Amino acid sequence: MLERIRIVLIGTSHPGNIGGVARAMHNMGLADLALVAPRCDVITQDSISRASGADHLLHQAVVYPTLEDAVVDCTLAVGASARSRTLPWPMISPRDLAERLPSECQHESARVALVFGREDSGLTNAELQRCHAHVHIPTNADFSSLNLAAAVQVLAYECRMAWLSQQQLEPTTEGEDELATHSELERYFEHLERALIAIEFHDPAQPRQLMARLRRLYLRARPEKMEMNILRGILSATEKSAGPKQP
Amino acid sequence: MLERIRIVLIGTSHPGNIGGVARAMHNMGLADLALVAPRCDVITQDSISRASGADHLLHQAVVYPTLEDAVVDCTLAVGASARSRTLPWPMISPRDLAERLPSECQHESARVALVFGREDSGLTNAELQRCHAHVHIPTNADFSSLNLAAAVQVLAYECRMAWLSQQQLEPTTEGEDELATHSELERYFEHLERALIAIEFHDPAQPRQLMARLRRLYLRARPEKMEMNILRGILSATEKSAGPKQP
Repeated sequence: MLERIRIVLIGTSHPGNIGGVARAMHNMGLADLALVAPRCDVITQDSISRASGADHLLHQAVVYPTLEDAVVDCTLAVGASARSRTLPWPMISPRDLAERLPSECQHESARVALVFGREDSGLTNAELQRCHAHVHIPTNADFSSLNLAAAVQVLAYECRMAWLSQQQLEPTTEGEDELATHSELERYFEHLERALIAIEFHDPAQPRQLMARLRRLYLRARPEKMEMNILRGILSATEKSAGPKQP
Repeated sequence: MLERIRIVLIGTSHPGNIGGVARAMHNMGLADLALVAPRCDVITQDSISRASGADHLLHQAVVYPTLEDAVVDCTLAVGASARSRTLPWPMISPRDLAERLPSECQHESARVALVFGREDSGLTNAELQRCHAHVHIPTNADFSSLNLAAAVQVLAYECRMAWLSQQQLEPTTEGEDELATHSELERYFEHLERALIAIEFHDPAQPRQLMARLRRLYLRARPEKMEMNILRGILSATEKSAGPKQP
């Protein structure tokens, strides 16, 4: 899916921004960079520095004279835009875009262009009207102009999230240790109560919901077996240290 | 909600990155910037240029000597991290974080710290272990190091998305008790370590990751103030019961 997504930059004027875009793209697994009539050199010390190891994207980038040329093979073009335009256009959020991407990218010949305008003036009305839809990154109304590389970063991140959920790879599988079982927890709570009595913190005749509160705390933490062993070890050391009960 | 979120940068070495972070924050409606032991000047031509109109955030930024100082009043600290660590910690995605934010920010006294490490080496294990959870921005496995401002941009964007969707929902009335603050938790961990030494369960000369494991467990449980009081009471009773140390 990600290989079917093209980032199109129109009339960029700062090489550093192109470098920052290359880094953001490569970080998120995008590789297809198109530059329409850039107003600066593409390969400079600044662009390579900001690309920070993703400069092969700068070298692979294709330069086109017009937006038309850059998106000629695209099946969907989405323009990054501020909210209000004289002629209202279908306006989606980055999240909406992400939800559409898996189906939009399904066919082998599918190509999705995400089109970004000039640092100072964005996309023209004519360019916006070449797009199927406009994507608006929600921003502070008083300070809405995102840095170009930051705007690409947000959309590229949403592309990657869409791709990951399509893979059905949870990004949070860590190889966690096994959780304690119910009976291990119950044995722990019994042991805890004995130890709290031994150190005279708990009086079963006046329970004051103490054990209930501690249960709620530890159950919420979902202890692992290893953690349970540590907690049991602490209780044993506590009891030993408290010494035998006075007769 | 957004005013309860703090961006914490540790040991940043490029003023331009601090400026880029300020811009990303202001774009998304965040304003609380904390700098821990920056390794560069904060107000420079480069930082002001990259802030691009958000330089009031640079002037308002508070500089702290340590992470501890920067998050002392925080009720939740989340560290930005690469995936694998020797001791696995609760790992969430930026989207998971966003889903948690509305409830995490509910109380007036709530403060959520999003903690970012050095450009070259990220966060240390000690810093990561002061965090309740780690957030991993999904990236290309071959090219995983995001620019600092780009990483802040992604999380700040998720914060704003969460805030926007909250605006569309009825306010949730949970009636939960207030959570313990970071400093209350840290005082608990100090007390816990003293008590474990007193009962001869813990030998600081041979720590075996014991305190790290206990931190992980308790931070995961998100103790409330009332629960913290109970746990502190148990420690005091444990110490009293163990008696004075043999000379």
